[in-house]
Amino acid sequence: MSKIERVAVVGGTHGNEFTGVYLYRHYQQKPKTVSRDSFTTDLVFANPRAHGENKRYCDHDLNRQFAVADLENPELTSYEQSRAKAINQQIGPKTNPRIDFVIDLHTTTSNMGATLLLLQPGEIYRKLAAYVTMKMPEVLVIRDLDHLPREEHRLLATTGKYGVIVEVGPVPQAVLRDDVYQQSHQMTQHILDFLELWNTDQLPELPPTVEAFRYTECVKLPVDALDNRLGMVHHNVQDNDFKPLHPGDAMFQCFDGTVICYEGDETVYPGFINEAAYYDNNLAMSLHEKVVIDTYQAD
Amino acid sequence: MSKIERVAVVGGTHGNEFTGVYLYRHYQQKPKTVSRDSFTTDLVFANPRAHGENKRYCDHDLNRQFAVADLENPELTSYEQSRAKAINQQIGPKTNPRIDFVIDLHTTTSNMGATLLLLQPGEIYRKLAAYVTMKMPEVLVIRDLDHLPREEHRLLATTGKYGVIVEVGPVPQAVLRDDVYQQSHQMTQHILDFLELWNTDQLPELPPTVEAFRYTECVKLPVDALDNRLGMVHHNVQDNDFKPLHPGDAMFQCFDGTVICYEGDETVYPGFINEAAYYDNNLAMSLHEKVVIDTYQAD
Repeated sequence: MSKIERVAVVGGTHGNEFTGVYLYRHYQQKPKTVSRDSFTTDLVFANPRAHGENKRYCDHDLNRQFAVADLENPELTSYEQSRAKAINQQIGPKTNPRIDFVIDLHTTTSNMGATLLLLQPGEIYRKLAAYVTMKMPEVLVIRDLDHLPREEHRLLATTGKYGVIVEVGPVPQAVLRDDVYQQSHQMTQHILDFLELWNTDQLPELPPTVEAFRYTECVKLPVDALDNRLGMVHHNVQDNDFKPLHPGDAMFQCFDGTVICYEGDETVYPGFINEAAYYDNNLAMSLHEKVVIDTYQAD
Repeated sequence: MSKIERVAVVGGTHGNEFTGVYLYRHYQQKPKTVSRDSFTTDLVFANPRAHGENKRYCDHDLNRQFAVADLENPELTSYEQSRAKAINQQIGPKTNPRIDFVIDLHTTTSNMGATLLLLQPGEIYRKLAAYVTMKMPEVLVIRDLDHLPREEHRLLATTGKYGVIVEVGPVPQAVLRDDVYQQSHQMTQHILDFLELWNTDQLPELPPTVEAFRYTECVKLPVDALDNRLGMVHHNVQDNDFKPLHPGDAMFQCFDGTVICYEGDETVYPGFINEAAYYDNNLAMSLHEKVVIDTYQAD
């Protein structure tokens, strides 16, 4: 069981997700809020230029730039590719990271509530999920995002030894909502408390299992041959993130009045439904299967 | 009682409000949806470049460029100032408009539901409000937006002889929601039906009074001397557009934990609460008073 000695709390990885930026600023003014006796905490404002321009990113999505091969490729020189290399110096290097645990603060326009995204399997993640959901029962857990080995993972939070994403919604881009801000702050506090208890071997008895969701695939909006949208997410699906979608259920409402139904064989659980950031690639939602995390399983 | 001979339905005045753009495209494909026997209808895509860039505007807010003095000022040459002059040729000239009635389709990130914004006083507006709220009781009416004479009014919809704004929310920028799309379409259809009945003198008996809201002032977020935000809209106010805000009620939640209360003397009704588009000028909400429209009053 390795001790967590250095933590990084990151805000503003996406420039128009204001909650993380304002929490970063608040934590800068009150650094004790994010430190604990057994570890130190760095604060990182990941994409200040995109925030200044009120955009998700300037040139490339920063949260897709952290595969080791890309971090080591000198030909990748856009603003976000350069920021990724600079952040890799602060947090990483990813191949031998300075930071043991990264908490990356995000928001979504989807009705996902407070979601904890675990990026890899492992004991610390299983116990963290059990602890956070015990303290905040409304938190949903997504595990094993993307199914990639750590070095190929493109997300900022994979640059430390361990890392999670705090993802809260719904909140429009460029908006601070009191409830979303407070939930993000609370979840961050519980994660930090967990790390302190983990380090000092004082974790309480945890729930033996945790319900979680595991990403399986992305679904695109219906489009024509020229990639023009033919419809939108059906109102039965809108806002129902992590509710079951059964084979044959309405999925898309087309502008011509027809309805497209879900044609899979299994019941699935959509997330990131109608997320605004995906407007340019016509993604409609992610699909997940429901899984159970066994808190105390042997690794 | 003047007849409405030419109508314009306008989408995409703000480029990142997708609902109006997609309704415009749908109406282009099905022009009979927006025409009636007694009038013709033009379709206008007001700000295609801002839509292409997924922004509210490129250089200036297009929906603030339609004061007569600005339309006639050759020194105003930005993209939106030029678009305003071009739209003034299509719909106006504002001093003697070609188009009798403009319907400008907008959305908001605020929880305003389906709102009909009347830009001026007058018989046609009073009867329209009575008709639309009779057909769609969930519609809220705002009257006399801005209190300006028509020639000084900067909104696109004032460029025709008459004009209204269809404003529906909540929907994040860059998102199409089925419910918001359908409500915007329905309200547009009822307005067009009303104009047909108005023209043919076949209006049904209308409710004698309509409850409405009248804009009084804007409220800014609390900021420090450098215009940095010190807080956000309090969770008691968030999403409660057009619900009463009483003197002494919590209004802002500051990041330092303190709460700022509403200090006015009268109960007011906030709207456009925490609208994302106002992030750059720190506007928190508009305040309104409740008024009654007398449908059959003498002008």
